[in-house]
Amino acid sequence: MDDLARRLLDALDRRRWTLACAESCTGGRFGAAVTRIPGASEAFRGGLITYVDDIKANVLGVDHALLEREGAVCAPVARQMAERARELFNADVAVSVTGIAGPNAPPELPVGLVYVGLATRDRVIAHEHRFDGDRERVRAQCVETMMRLVIEAASAEGGGT
Amino acid sequence: MDDLARRLLDALDRRRWTLACAESCTGGRFGAAVTRIPGASEAFRGGLITYVDDIKANVLGVDHALLEREGAVCAPVARQMAERARELFNADVAVSVTGIAGPNAPPELPVGLVYVGLATRDRVIAHEHRFDGDRERVRAQCVETMMRLVIEAASAEGGGT
Repeated sequence: MDDLARRLLDALDRRRWTLACAESCTGGRFGAAVTRIPGASEAFRGGLITYVDDIKANVLGVDHALLEREGAVCAPVARQMAERARELFNADVAVSVTGIAGPNAPPELPVGLVYVGLATRDRVIAHEHRFDGDRERVRAQCVETMMRLVIEAASAEGGGT
Repeated sequence: MDDLARRLLDALDRRRWTLACAESCTGGRFGAAVTRIPGASEAFRGGLITYVDDIKANVLGVDHALLEREGAVCAPVARQMAERARELFNADVAVSVTGIAGPNAPPELPVGLVYVGLATRDRVIAHEHRFDGDRERVRAQCVETMMRLVIEAASAEGGGT
């Protein structure tokens, strides 16, 4: 994971991009993984751990009605989490995650169902994932996926920020 | 660390206390450690990773003038981080950390100098620590100290919240 975090920071450095995050099921693990690397503060500005739903709405600013209607584990919430985090932390790119790490899950949602979102100044996306394994394995795959998504965005987008 | 996190959640559960955090040098590692434990959402509401100073001021609400005057690594900032996190996340107790994990450090501050803060409805405190070891060892000691401080507060205070 350290290698991936270094690649992430290198990719951000090449673009002179700053980074923020909004984490639900990972509970801070993405931020912790990025900041294992000395000098992470060059790019990483910070993040919000929105572990319960009212924090997603009241602190991060995700739409109350959306959370009521769709629940917290869906692509629109992942997109809003990334977008609001980017704005709140005044970052060039923000990444988000919301999902079911298990072992407990609501009846209608499988363990391992995760949405990872990303916002730049130009676009906001979210992808659905179905991760296997126990709680820590699911959380590790979340963090890895978040890192890869940021690397891809920082490497692929040729235009200005 | 999992055992300590379980003791933390048990201590909070006995008091029916909710928890928030504001993390600087640990970058999310406290939240990540607490949320390794299934059911952590019963007590843990979320947290802020305030990795750069302007986020401490602009998102968390730490006093600008204090940061300018004293820098981010001091007891008053740790106290304000805990107090603001408790308010922002509407939690019964909040814990904070600000310090120098290394290997890089400002000329006037030694690697391992850390302030851990705690706020309940009744009091706000901060303690200075000098931790040994490399970056990850310092960060691990931060998280352990934060957990022990919350356990102590939840176990010791007999009065209502």
